[in-house]
Amino acid sequence: MLITGTFLDEISHDIPHQNWGPQEWDQDFQYMKAAGIDTVILIRCGYRKQLTFPCRYLMQQHGCFPPSLDLVDLFLCLSEKYDMNFFFGLYDSGAWWDSGNASEDLSANKFVCEEAWQRYGHYPAFKGWYLSMEISRRTREATDAIAEMGNHCKQLSNNLPTFISPWIDGKKALSMQDGIIKKHESISLKQHEEEWNEIFDGIKNAVDIVAFQDGHVEYHELYDYLTVNKQLADKYGLRSWTNCESFDRDMPIKFLPIKFDLMKLKLEAAEKAGCEKAITFEFSHFMSPQSMYGSARHLYNRYLEYKKQKTESVLKT
Amino acid sequence: MLITGTFLDEISHDIPHQNWGPQEWDQDFQYMKAAGIDTVILIRCGYRKQLTFPCRYLMQQHGCFPPSLDLVDLFLCLSEKYDMNFFFGLYDSGAWWDSGNASEDLSANKFVCEEAWQRYGHYPAFKGWYLSMEISRRTREATDAIAEMGNHCKQLSNNLPTFISPWIDGKKALSMQDGIIKKHESISLKQHEEEWNEIFDGIKNAVDIVAFQDGHVEYHELYDYLTVNKQLADKYGLRSWTNCESFDRDMPIKFLPIKFDLMKLKLEAAEKAGCEKAITFEFSHFMSPQSMYGSARHLYNRYLEYKKQKTESVLKT
Amino acid sequence: MLITGTFLDEISHDIPHQNWGPQEWDQDFQYMKAAGIDTVILIRCGYRKQLTFPCRYLMQQHGCFPPSLDLVDLFLCLSEKYDMNFFFGLYDSGAWWDSGNASEDLSANKFVCEEAWQRYGHYPAFKGWYLSMEISRRTREATDAIAEMGNHCKQLSNNLPTFISPWIDGKKALSMQDGIIKKHESISLKQHEEEWNEIFDGIKNAVDIVAFQDGHVEYHELYDYLTVNKQLADKYGLRSWTNCESFDRDMPIKFLPIKFDLMKLKLEAAEKAGCEKAITFEFSHFMSPQSMYGSARHLYNRYLEYKKQKTESVLKT
Repeated sequence: MLITGTFLDEISHDIPHQNWGPQEWDQDFQYMKAAGIDTVILIRCGYRKQLTFPCRYLMQQHGCFPPSLDLVDLFLCLSEKYDMNFFFGLYDSGAWWDSGNASEDLSANKFVCEEAWQRYGHYPAFKGWYLSMEISRRTREATDAIAEMGNHCKQLSNNLPTFISPWIDGKKALSMQDGIIKKHESISLKQHEEEWNEIFDGIKNAVDIVAFQDGHVEYHELYDYLTVNKQLADKYGLRSWTNCESFDRDMPIKFLPIKFDLMKLKLEAAEKAGCEKAITFEFSHFMSPQSMYGSARHLYNRYLEYKKQKTESVLKT
Repeated sequence: MLITGTFLDEISHDIPHQNWGPQEWDQDFQYMKAAGIDTVILIRCGYRKQLTFPCRYLMQQHGCFPPSLDLVDLFLCLSEKYDMNFFFGLYDSGAWWDSGNASEDLSANKFVCEEAWQRYGHYPAFKGWYLSMEISRRTREATDAIAEMGNHCKQLSNNLPTFISPWIDGKKALSMQDGIIKKHESISLKQHEEEWNEIFDGIKNAVDIVAFQDGHVEYHELYDYLTVNKQLADKYGLRSWTNCESFDRDMPIKFLPIKFDLMKLKLEAAEKAGCEKAITFEFSHFMSPQSMYGSARHLYNRYLEYKKQKTESVLKT
Repeated sequence: MLITGTFLDEISHDIPHQNWGPQEWDQDFQYMKAAGIDTVILIRCGYRKQLTFPCRYLMQQHGCFPPSLDLVDLFLCLSEKYDMNFFFGLYDSGAWWDSGNASEDLSANKFVCEEAWQRYGHYPAFKGWYLSMEISRRTREATDAIAEMGNHCKQLSNNLPTFISPWIDGKKALSMQDGIIKKHESISLKQHEEEWNEIFDGIKNAVDIVAFQDGHVEYHELYDYLTVNKQLADKYGLRSWTNCESFDRDMPIKFLPIKFDLMKLKLEAAEKAGCEKAITFEFSHFMSPQSMYGSARHLYNRYLEYKKQKTESVLKT
């Protein structure tokens, strides 16, 4: 199983900004291409008061700051140039994280998605929507909000695919502000299955693809969770991708590139569980030769060696 | 509003040391010059037992360690070479942070400043004093100590200017040891105004310049605080600079370079509020092309592009 | 006193992985050689489920993951190529850290050491054993476990030397998960002496060398602790090395390279206390010109300048 997609994290939530301009981004798309990436997903088009494109609605209604560069336009052009599919990530006001209130993001995103579709819908690389509200546990309100946003996006865009990337509420499901690396209480496999049975039932038809984040459970537990996720997604007609995190959750520095052997372990577990495609969060900080983190370059090299091995062994059989 | 000054943070408090020698420092002054910097401020000449110059008094009376290189001498020579103004930062024993005791630093600094003035007062680049005791809230003892230190420095040096760089006790006013990014309680604008009215009254005449740190309040609140600060400083006859922090306080890694758009936002707020000059904390870790932090190089490039734009637009008008 | 040994930390406990392959490791051994290093110590051959070599026993009995590269073999070959002594670090299951249970690691390591000796004992560079269980305070169970492991390794290998690297329970003896930098309670010099008198008595004959970690007490306290350690080690017939930590424990980013002046201070204290050899934790992240941490390169350069000075001053006398 090889990585063929990556998030684009250009809106500073818990990963520091690299301050790249158009030239560095073009170079990064070249590195992605060489690594076999065909899909890029904007993690969110705006976060609290920061934006990736000059969204009139958000600047006027939410006091968001105008960005100095239209990154959505840039990413769509680069996607076209390098023959990749672009998914547009929805706006995140922070309200869901702060107060559990999903309605604020829901109403804002109706306007945001319409404005985005008017501006960028004609780009041939615009291939789908990423519903950026992250969930993990059964919450009626969040489930309904995701379904409604999914339906809205599909209606706008002649049924372009929608996808989500939830997390598993495992031992490593901690906030970036927590000092600890692992918590004592975590969800059981059985409870996870029960809750996601309900969630998938609530979002089916409105969401096409699910890519669970793979970094919140212990490495030796991952396969079991991926298998349950795959079975449930199949039951409700969703396609299963895996979101293979390329950073390390076990270290005191939050966050630096992962050890390659651990990434390989997670990719092999996803392959065995039957996932269809692997994407990563995210290439530009954790796997790019030009990342601000020096070890990302070596992860890139180790990954390319692995890719070469896998490709050659497939050719032989 | 462009950045024309920077602190020099060579005494390891909460920013890791880069281990530069004279060659790397010379190179960094060249990068600063190219970015338009005309003023450098040594953040402190000593911190607890570490020194930037071999201060006889502190080595003998406080058991401070002799430094392997006289950085004050080096910085003064480089300031002269690159035509910059140097401000000398006072000694910080740590007592104020540990126990709120200002008298210890006050008495030590009388000797330290005299020794420093004897050693370095003849350098033409020696242009002022930075009173390194950082305050935020009204404290009679600290206010008096700052006034006394300011007067002492001015008397020593034929009235060279003195300056302070306080912080605003906003949501992000946290210790480097706090896991959280924002606190629940923070000062109101009104309370801030009341307290600084008193503080400025207590330090007027002894302090010439005030440069508030600009990173402790939310981005959209900054302009209001800067405006109050400017009005109060005007009232008591202090000049207003802004200390535009070039690192990001919203990230779990404490601290890495800021996103350029956020720096631009802060500079524009300071310009609108009428600040006279912008300095930064600090160039060498967060904006230098040779910084240990890879993204500093890109912040430098983005900043130079902005500077070029601003300069050209001024030329046109 | 110069650094002539280093740990090799290739098993991701609290220092992020650099993802080096054989080529980068060969280069790093060249950098080490140029810095005067003649001894390398594998910090541990496995940690929880991660391994540095494909240990049949641990893969079958503990469900450990097979590594993609046999690092023990690689490090032994490089040690031979660059004429260095290699110490093999024992397996750490994590049980000691999690529950204070020493018996689990003890029983596993009997098998692990036998397997390792069979696989690698014939390499001429295999020169000793590093007993990786770290202790600080008197614990009967841990003392007995170390003695038993030491004896087992010596019997296996025709009495090759064994060594330990304990920590001092000083103000900076904190977990990587602690937000704080210093704790309020710490051991007194007298209490430390009492406890280590007992521990050394319990491990004498089974352990040949002790290298205390030098980063957990204040810089000005270090000499006193080193002196006590040396006297006690002499009393019980152990050789004294110092483990000069090349990272900074006083910073919010855990961990980045130390300021050279502080490293020099610690080396001079160890020399004065009579330590026989200095090793460091560890070269590849904190002192290597190719480290992921940009300031490591400058620490390397500062260290080489110091080494040159020291060597020349010895030649003159």
